[in-house]
Amino acid sequence: MRIRPLADRVVIKKIEAEEKTASGIVLPGAAKEQPQIAEVVEVGPGGMVDGKEVKMELKVGDKVIFSKYAGSEVKLEGQEYTILKQSEILAVVE
Amino acid sequence: MRIRPLADRVVIKKIEAEEKTASGIVLPGAAKEQPQIAEVVEVGPGGMVDGKEVKMELKVGDKVIFSKYAGSEVKLEGQEYTILKQSEILAVVE
Amino acid sequence: MRIRPLADRVVIKKIEAEEKTASGIVLPGAAKEQPQIAEVVEVGPGGMVDGKEVKMELKVGDKVIFSKYAGSEVKLEGQEYTILKQSEILAVVE
Amino acid sequence: MRIRPLADRVVIKKIEAEEKTASGIVLPGAAKEQPQIAEVVEVGPGGMVDGKEVKMELKVGDKVIFSKYAGSEVKLEGQEYTILKQSEILAVVE
Amino acid sequence: MRIRPLADRVVIKKIEAEEKTASGIVLPGAAKEQPQIAEVVEVGPGGMVDGKEVKMELKVGDKVIFSKYAGSEVKLEGQEYTILKQSEILAVVE
Amino acid sequence: MRIRPLADRVVIKKIEAEEKTASGIVLPGAAKEQPQIAEVVEVGPGGMVDGKEVKMELKVGDKVIFSKYAGSEVKLEGQEYTILKQSEILAVVE
Amino acid sequence: MRIRPLADRVVIKKIEAEEKTASGIVLPGAAKEQPQIAEVVEVGPGGMVDGKEVKMELKVGDKVIFSKYAGSEVKLEGQEYTILKQSEILAVVE
Repeated sequence: MRIRPLADRVVIKKIEAEEKTASGIVLPGAAKEQPQIAEVVEVGPGGMVDGKEVKMELKVGDKVIFSKYAGSEVKLEGQEYTILKQSEILAVVE
Repeated sequence: MRIRPLADRVVIKKIEAEEKTASGIVLPGAAKEQPQIAEVVEVGPGGMVDGKEVKMELKVGDKVIFSKYAGSEVKLEGQEYTILKQSEILAVVE
Repeated sequence: MRIRPLADRVVIKKIEAEEKTASGIVLPGAAKEQPQIAEVVEVGPGGMVDGKEVKMELKVGDKVIFSKYAGSEVKLEGQEYTILKQSEILAVVE
Repeated sequence: MRIRPLADRVVIKKIEAEEKTASGIVLPGAAKEQPQIAEVVEVGPGGMVDGKEVKMELKVGDKVIFSKYAGSEVKLEGQEYTILKQSEILAVVE
Repeated sequence: MRIRPLADRVVIKKIEAEEKTASGIVLPGAAKEQPQIAEVVEVGPGGMVDGKEVKMELKVGDKVIFSKYAGSEVKLEGQEYTILKQSEILAVVE
Repeated sequence: MRIRPLADRVVIKKIEAEEKTASGIVLPGAAKEQPQIAEVVEVGPGGMVDGKEVKMELKVGDKVIFSKYAGSEVKLEGQEYTILKQSEILAVVE
Repeated sequence: MRIRPLADRVVIKKIEAEEKTASGIVLPGAAKEQPQIAEVVEVGPGGMVDGKEVKMELKVGDKVIFSKYAGSEVKLEGQEYTILKQSEILAVVE
């Protein structure tokens, strides 16, 4: 099953950070302070959106920072995704 | 009776998920965690909407993900539908 | 007395559903679950509305579904009407 | 004293309904259920309003239905008027 | 000291109504029911305002009716003025 | 240190009124009723702002009246300034 | 790791003021009254944003004043950044 976003939307998947402490214990993401970073998994076609031409700048695989609460969360086959407009993506992390 | 949506609207019908557990018991949709997926049953003509040209990208039969609370719910001949603008459809599921 | 709507407005009249139960008792509309269906009784001329050209797609006699709370209700000669913009009409029922 | 409305505004005066009951008692307007009908007493010049050309469709003497709470009420020489934009007039009653 | 309004603004001064009762007692404005009438004391140059050309229609000395609460009140050399946009002036009283 | 405002912004500094009473006592500004007057200390370059051309009409040294609560207050080297858009300046006082 | 802002956004880093008192004690930033000054560390490409051409005026290294609460805060590799639109930057400090 594949999510094909419409218009100027992208589908992103939050990156679960995992890290070993000095003692070797694996800390799940929630136990650490971490940025809102996600990976782009699908990119919409862009085009005319609300009467304005939107060109998609993002590509699949980009690591991005996005506004907290932006977009809609959906769960598909046990995986959580966020669908949001490209303009709600703040930056790409390289 | 047929619902013909105006302008850039589409009519969708929520998909009721039904699933057998290992023991063979059928779980109704509400008992599971499921995405907001619906099927497009009617597509409006598009055209000039609020002074902007809107081209309809969706077609009848598309499985779509839509924003929770988007659109208006109507009940016709015992069936519930949601009428919403194409721009409130987030993605197509394939 | 006739209500001539201005600009991109239409005048609609809610359709009172009446139905006999198996025992032959007539149920008034309020006692049943029914869609918000109304009949268009007057259609405005359209034209330039807030700087945008609006073409009227509806015609007198159309059965329509409209957003709950949309428009203004007026009572004239004992009959209740709703005056609303064509863009607040969601769909035509055929 | 005369009120000359600016731009796309009109000045209207509510119509006081007066009616005799069967017994001949005159009921003042407030005692009956009546539509929000008013008479247009002045029409502004129209023209460019907020960057958009507005053509005045109403004329002095038109009986109109208007949105409750629309416009500003003013009292001049003991008479109450409402000044509102033509776009807040819903329909003309003929 | 002179207030020169910018863009599409005008400066107005409320007109204090003063009236003798039959007994000859002078009633200050606050004791009577009176419209919100003011006199235009300065008119801005108009021109491009928020990307739209605004032509000033008002002139110094015009008696105007304005929306209650519109504009900003300022006190200069003991005199109160209201500075507001021409579009917040509802009508001219003649 | 100098504050160079961007786009259509200006930097203003409130004018502290100081006045001697008949007895020669100096009253600080807060003890008197005074208009919101400030002096323009920096003027941005104007140009395209939100897709619209803005021409700066104000110049350094202008005494201006501005909307209460408009703009952002900043403190730099012990001096308080307000940075606001030219369109939030109501009038120039001459 | 590098944050590359999209469209008309910039990445800024608050400047921590540090100052010795007469006695030589170092005061951390929070103990003093200080303006909201930050340094620009990344500048987006500008271009068409919401249908309007935006030209980036800021450059890396600029010291800027920005609206309190503007933008989104992100933490990356232990450093806090704010990502905001160029139009939310009020002024450059020189």
